[in-house]
Amino acid sequence: MHDMRIRKIREELEKKYIDALLVSNFYSILYLTGFKTLTTDEREAFVIVAKEKVYLFSDARYIDEQLTLNTQYSTFEYKLIEPNKSLISHLYDIVEEEKINSLGFEAEDLKYSEYQKLSRTFKKLNPVSTDRLTIKIRELKDKQETDCIARACEIGDRCLTEIVKIIRPGVSEKEIGFKIEMWIREKGCDLAFDPIVAIDANASVVHYNTKDGDGVVKDGSIVLIDFGVKYKNYLSDMTRMVFVGQPNDEVKKTYEILAEAQQKTVEKITELETLKEADEFCRKLITDNRLPSYPHSTGHGVGLEIHEYPKVSLNSPDKRKVNQVFTIEPGVYFPDKHGMRVEDTVVIKEDGKARILTKFPKSLLAI
Amino acid sequence: MHDMRIRKIREELEKKYIDALLVSNFYSILYLTGFKTLTTDEREAFVIVAKEKVYLFSDARYIDEQLTLNTQYSTFEYKLIEPNKSLISHLYDIVEEEKINSLGFEAEDLKYSEYQKLSRTFKKLNPVSTDRLTIKIRELKDKQETDCIARACEIGDRCLTEIVKIIRPGVSEKEIGFKIEMWIREKGCDLAFDPIVAIDANASVVHYNTKDGDGVVKDGSIVLIDFGVKYKNYLSDMTRMVFVGQPNDEVKKTYEILAEAQQKTVEKITELETLKEADEFCRKLITDNRLPSYPHSTGHGVGLEIHEYPKVSLNSPDKRKVNQVFTIEPGVYFPDKHGMRVEDTVVIKEDGKARILTKFPKSLLAI
Repeated sequence: MHDMRIRKIREELEKKYIDALLVSNFYSILYLTGFKTLTTDEREAFVIVAKEKVYLFSDARYIDEQLTLNTQYSTFEYKLIEPNKSLISHLYDIVEEEKINSLGFEAEDLKYSEYQKLSRTFKKLNPVSTDRLTIKIRELKDKQETDCIARACEIGDRCLTEIVKIIRPGVSEKEIGFKIEMWIREKGCDLAFDPIVAIDANASVVHYNTKDGDGVVKDGSIVLIDFGVKYKNYLSDMTRMVFVGQPNDEVKKTYEILAEAQQKTVEKITELETLKEADEFCRKLITDNRLPSYPHSTGHGVGLEIHEYPKVSLNSPDKRKVNQVFTIEPGVYFPDKHGMRVEDTVVIKEDGKARILTKFPKSLLAI
Repeated sequence: MHDMRIRKIREELEKKYIDALLVSNFYSILYLTGFKTLTTDEREAFVIVAKEKVYLFSDARYIDEQLTLNTQYSTFEYKLIEPNKSLISHLYDIVEEEKINSLGFEAEDLKYSEYQKLSRTFKKLNPVSTDRLTIKIRELKDKQETDCIARACEIGDRCLTEIVKIIRPGVSEKEIGFKIEMWIREKGCDLAFDPIVAIDANASVVHYNTKDGDGVVKDGSIVLIDFGVKYKNYLSDMTRMVFVGQPNDEVKKTYEILAEAQQKTVEKITELETLKEADEFCRKLITDNRLPSYPHSTGHGVGLEIHEYPKVSLNSPDKRKVNQVFTIEPGVYFPDKHGMRVEDTVVIKEDGKARILTKFPKSLLAI
């Protein structure tokens, strides 16, 4: 699994005449080696993919994880980061030993100050900015990855089935969000992100912060629930609407247009070459029905991170490809009134069709 | 409060002959404006501190937060990020309007690829790398900040007082960690980071991951608890040891040396000019007693982030200054056997003395 991923990296490096790649991104390190540090942004580890060897650097605080990995994968070479030496000085030996002339780095991850140190320190070394090399490889999921995402989606479906039962007048957004979290954690999983539970007018704020909010379910409330599960590092993402009592005809009609636009877009994907077209197609179904366009993209890739490649937006250059995993999530928002969104996580199968992984029903759910 | 912080930024810019600063870091934006996006790493907002005005950019998903801020602070000018325009194109108007020739950026935050776009797009503009300008200003806390940190520490003290009561043979690390989290969240606060609860040999792994662990308290266990509270965006950090049953003389002696070294270091700080000396002083007290040195620094700054300036390490260039907040946390680790650490969060007062904010007792706690 990791061997295949490393091979893909090496193929890209060869095409670009780069001798080795410095991998600094937390998720790329996890993807390529299975190694995970406690924090995502503190540079506690880095990887160098060279021609023959893969070097994994981390400090003494992770010695145990290193030993565990060592027995699992013998293809990595472990190097200890010493507390009083900089990242750069650790690179020295490898650069010499491997005769590295051009070292690729992840331009979308490396900080400008890190780049500066790199280029100033190695006079002979040519640091080459690679443009999303690793994260573009991560765009196409292998079987182990789609299995994990499918499982995360399935756990999310089961969670929502239970959570719907507790929604009634008097229950707060926070309580629903908390119960989603507890249900998922009891199953030994984690949240993919803090759940968004937004009632009525709050749901018209696309990035509503449930933790800071004070919404409470009332008779006739419209409840938006956007949440995901993290299963073995892989994420799911789903949004559903719950109507408390039968909604009036206008609301009902709006919901049906939205849910239908979402479903039709998923079905249309197989005919489209690019994901920009998917965004245009979905958005047009909404606006053709005299509903307002939504102030966000129609979807985004999902994997180790909640927002990754491909992009499903008006300015996305990404083509539809087999083994992409992404969301389709149009919305309709009326400020100060209410907001609705319907979102599935889908995977592109061998036949080019988008298969929905989040299977919780999208028919109007009135409780 | 924000005005004062902005003024400090402008003073630094003037010294460096920089016309304006592009602020991209999530915590720096929060610090300078009070504005907070849902994610810390997705560039959903940015700030430009110009000579007269401060521009805050964010997208339509945050329109509500913008309006709220607008009523609070009239000194900011709000700009909407349009979904199909890049960050760069949003900068155009401001650069023109404000006649910006040199634009500073946070070199330790801006990605190399973002820098590339910036320097390629603006032919006339001179992007100037600023070295930790904002985060060095954040190093010295104002009253509102130390008040929040002190409160976070106090809540942590109360939490641990309750948590100690549930520690007994049969209870797992995960359960203790979970109960710490629940106690803190019931109080309307958040975790500063995932608590580390590590029993016996697990405590010798400095970055032990409690969520993936399986340790259970036994008779005679040594329990390490390292956790923090987030109160109004500000963090606390504390580590304490709990002994289940009376420890043997050797363990007791080791603990006493460690706790004494930690306390002596806190008291010594007022006499030291640099924080490198604090690290050396503390480490020497441990090794002079024939105990092994610890594979981490003696401390780190705490504020909006759990690791910020100043550094308290062997290669720290930072001087001791009034209104710094940092930890002092030596440890003693015996691989496969046990590990101990004692950690306080302290603030440097006007008289140069370090005042301990985490007040849970450090005398040997045997239950």
